[in-house]
Amino acid sequence: MRADHEKIRRLISTARGQLDGILKMVEEDRYCVDISNQLMATAAVIRKANREVLAAHMMGCMSEAIQQGKGQEKIDEVMKLLEKMDK
Amino acid sequence: MRADHEKIRRLISTARGQLDGILKMVEEDRYCVDISNQLMATAAVIRKANREVLAAHMMGCMSEAIQQGKGQEKIDEVMKLLEKMDK
Amino acid sequence: MRADHEKIRRLISTARGQLDGILKMVEEDRYCVDISNQLMATAAVIRKANREVLAAHMMGCMSEAIQQGKGQEKIDEVMKLLEKMDK
Amino acid sequence: MRADHEKIRRLISTARGQLDGILKMVEEDRYCVDISNQLMATAAVIRKANREVLAAHMMGCMSEAIQQGKGQEKIDEVMKLLEKMDK
Repeated sequence: MRADHEKIRRLISTARGQLDGILKMVEEDRYCVDISNQLMATAAVIRKANREVLAAHMMGCMSEAIQQGKGQEKIDEVMKLLEKMDK
Repeated sequence: MRADHEKIRRLISTARGQLDGILKMVEEDRYCVDISNQLMATAAVIRKANREVLAAHMMGCMSEAIQQGKGQEKIDEVMKLLEKMDK
Repeated sequence: MRADHEKIRRLISTARGQLDGILKMVEEDRYCVDISNQLMATAAVIRKANREVLAAHMMGCMSEAIQQGKGQEKIDEVMKLLEKMDK
Repeated sequence: MRADHEKIRRLISTARGQLDGILKMVEEDRYCVDISNQLMATAAVIRKANREVLAAHMMGCMSEAIQQGKGQEKIDEVMKLLEKMDK
């Protein structure tokens, strides 16, 4: 992956730290609504990491393939990812 | 939280393990599309954990409040969570 | 449906009007990014209508069922909807 | 827009027809859960139309820009769309 590794690693590490905090909240029997808010915040960080990976992919592999006239396959691959993102 | 703690903890721990694996993939410079797929799988596990927390909340706090004729506030609170889930 | 019919109808009508506008944009060969933005705005209006329907359901049918000690089935039904919303 | 106009128009027209049907369901006071399911189905059709528009954009404008060495701006534009899709 040619992405901005450092930024992506930082986001993933942040999400991991949030999950540790949420496990503690569950053990401490904290209010469901607070736990839910934290889970959604964590999912948002992971989605942000995912967008960063996609941006890197478009700037790297996909752009190269397009410049070589072989863009179709890479664009199809990205569209499949978007279909999953979009559920 | 009155939820099924064990199930929720297991889902959160699974997501945490997935993030560890993804950090390793980033370090190993793996293909962006594979990393993206793993990130989306992790986000799906976190959303599942969130729905379990919500189900527990509805069966617990919210149902009690409704039985005591004080449901409005709890339903408003859940609707705010749904607005966030729904972006 | 006991929901606030008027509010829900208004949202659905708004979305319908937006789709008419978007069909026109497609015919006029407008810029893809502008069309995409309009489609996402329309989807957001539909999700808002959906949340209004859910709120009405929780205040109505679901609360009644819970007061009669028959909440489980209604909560399961709502959780299935949330699973779909959440993809 | 260079997209597959016909496919995109068909999806948007389908969504429009679904909204007409849902308005009728609301007027007939149908069960909230059924209305919610229809609203979510409609949102899914709109998201599919949106992905078709994006695919067309990537194959058209974005690929051309990349081939001319001016991909950055187009990719940034697509990333902003993804951020909205992703909420």
